[in-house]
Amino acid sequence: MEKIRIGIAGYGNLGKGVELAIRQNDDMELVGVFTRRDPANVKLMTEGVPAYRLSDAQNMQDSIDVMIICGGSATDLPEQTPALAQYFNVIDSFDTHARIPEHFANVDKAAKENGHLAMISLGWDPGLFSLNRVYAESILPNGKTYTFWGKGVSQGHSDAIRRVAGVKKGIQYTVPVEAAMDAVRSGVQPELSTREKHERVCFVVAEDGADKDAITAEIKGMKNYFDQYNTTVNFITDEEFDAQHNTMPHGGFVMRSAKTGDGEKTHQMIEYSLKLESNPEFTASVLVAYARALYRMKAEGMTGCKTAFDVAPAYLSRMSAAELRAQML
Amino acid sequence: MEKIRIGIAGYGNLGKGVELAIRQNDDMELVGVFTRRDPANVKLMTEGVPAYRLSDAQNMQDSIDVMIICGGSATDLPEQTPALAQYFNVIDSFDTHARIPEHFANVDKAAKENGHLAMISLGWDPGLFSLNRVYAESILPNGKTYTFWGKGVSQGHSDAIRRVAGVKKGIQYTVPVEAAMDAVRSGVQPELSTREKHERVCFVVAEDGADKDAITAEIKGMKNYFDQYNTTVNFITDEEFDAQHNTMPHGGFVMRSAKTGDGEKTHQMIEYSLKLESNPEFTASVLVAYARALYRMKAEGMTGCKTAFDVAPAYLSRMSAAELRAQML
Repeated sequence: MEKIRIGIAGYGNLGKGVELAIRQNDDMELVGVFTRRDPANVKLMTEGVPAYRLSDAQNMQDSIDVMIICGGSATDLPEQTPALAQYFNVIDSFDTHARIPEHFANVDKAAKENGHLAMISLGWDPGLFSLNRVYAESILPNGKTYTFWGKGVSQGHSDAIRRVAGVKKGIQYTVPVEAAMDAVRSGVQPELSTREKHERVCFVVAEDGADKDAITAEIKGMKNYFDQYNTTVNFITDEEFDAQHNTMPHGGFVMRSAKTGDGEKTHQMIEYSLKLESNPEFTASVLVAYARALYRMKAEGMTGCKTAFDVAPAYLSRMSAAELRAQML
Repeated sequence: MEKIRIGIAGYGNLGKGVELAIRQNDDMELVGVFTRRDPANVKLMTEGVPAYRLSDAQNMQDSIDVMIICGGSATDLPEQTPALAQYFNVIDSFDTHARIPEHFANVDKAAKENGHLAMISLGWDPGLFSLNRVYAESILPNGKTYTFWGKGVSQGHSDAIRRVAGVKKGIQYTVPVEAAMDAVRSGVQPELSTREKHERVCFVVAEDGADKDAITAEIKGMKNYFDQYNTTVNFITDEEFDAQHNTMPHGGFVMRSAKTGDGEKTHQMIEYSLKLESNPEFTASVLVAYARALYRMKAEGMTGCKTAFDVAPAYLSRMSAAELRAQML
């Protein structure tokens, strides 16, 4: 069997997750990692697979079927994805919701002009959560959709905590409010404020002699990050922090509460949820499955930029159409 | 706006659900219902829409974009769907899992030979549950998938109860076992027997003077239907039965428990669930959304038979591709 030849651009948590996910899919092989660092200092987990300079990637066009781009959404992907789409079929996890139309247009242009296929914003939100919103709203037009996130680590909020004076280490968990989720499930279609949907729980290691009350006050008052939420700040020891807050769990819920039938009185509830011990490993698994879809759709002649909405589920599976019908329908 | 012109073949609970679902989608209009009964005796809920003889359907080819076939899977659909696919683009909810490949082949042949597009086995299982199994297994290859059904009314089991001597009225609820679902959610990937996954709860109105112990024993011992399950039989009054057991709720859960990462030790959990106050109204809503997809895919020139696996989610939505990216991704 011909394997799908994958390149990884960017070798942080997400890139490493992609490397590990490829091992679980024996129709794929990893060709190399492309990094902005000195490749001599980048050691892969996979025996015999080299690291290359990102700037040399274009010389490898003939060796790679799909380039999975694992940079950050703030500054890396807006530049890297259109640039690499000139040379490769590409896929990314761009997650700045407000800038998706602009990113799509840039990637679509670069891919189309060079006869490549691209996919953007793959992961779980955007990604699987988006899919579930579209399926649920298309099937049940008269209703309300709710998205809850967590329990999970927010990198942005954790970074914000760590910028507070006197904070040595800090991490923030976004926690969905059970009472709000139960209200949604009851079918009353509540209007929920920001504060009612999620709370924020922080674990902080303070510097020696730091004023803990001042730290707590500064965190709780931080505009946009914390001021609209019920926030708890817990001070813990260095040892406890390292032992208990060293993973990146996340997850969440997409719920659609809707009415059907005569007089629209029948309550119908769709709920999708993820409980992830590792956010980057899961996002990587989504990217790898969609890399398979991309490879097949390209083989059918498609070019330009696509999203999860454009991908028929059969493209994701190792199984043939007949196997899917016989075993999975 | 040109509306999608829908016909309904078969006017039982599902057909009526389709009629009501069309009202929630103002890009569609109902042209007529086609019935094996005398149309003079069939009164629709929708003002001004006529009933026709099913045998006259082929005269209406030019008036209908999609025929939604609402017969039963045991004997109606295997005959009706290929027959109607000669004259129409068709969609059905065929749910006899073991016979799907055969049904697919028959419908595919009839549709292709006549330049029509068909979709089969749309609903929630098969249908949305099947989709969730494929998405989850494609993304997380190293894991186990579990499907639980209920709490909901099983027509087949309710029919079986009603055939027992001394039973005046009877209904059966399939109930998923909470402990089994919690074991799955914990990540231990349990092997679950039939008895461990679901229990069966029956409500029976006995004929005057009937031997209730004998009824209970006969129900509990019924081969395949009840003997492999923990079954409870509750005797209630006629009034209680009519007041509390007059709806068709259903639902269920698709769960994928899987491992990712270095050494495959990271637990990742995907869960999809439905809680439906009306099984036929929900199935009808799925059929109507997929009728929209079918209409669009036909407009692109596709013919033959498709399943949910072949339909990119964007086809289901009223929104344009650009609206979906801006608002739903």
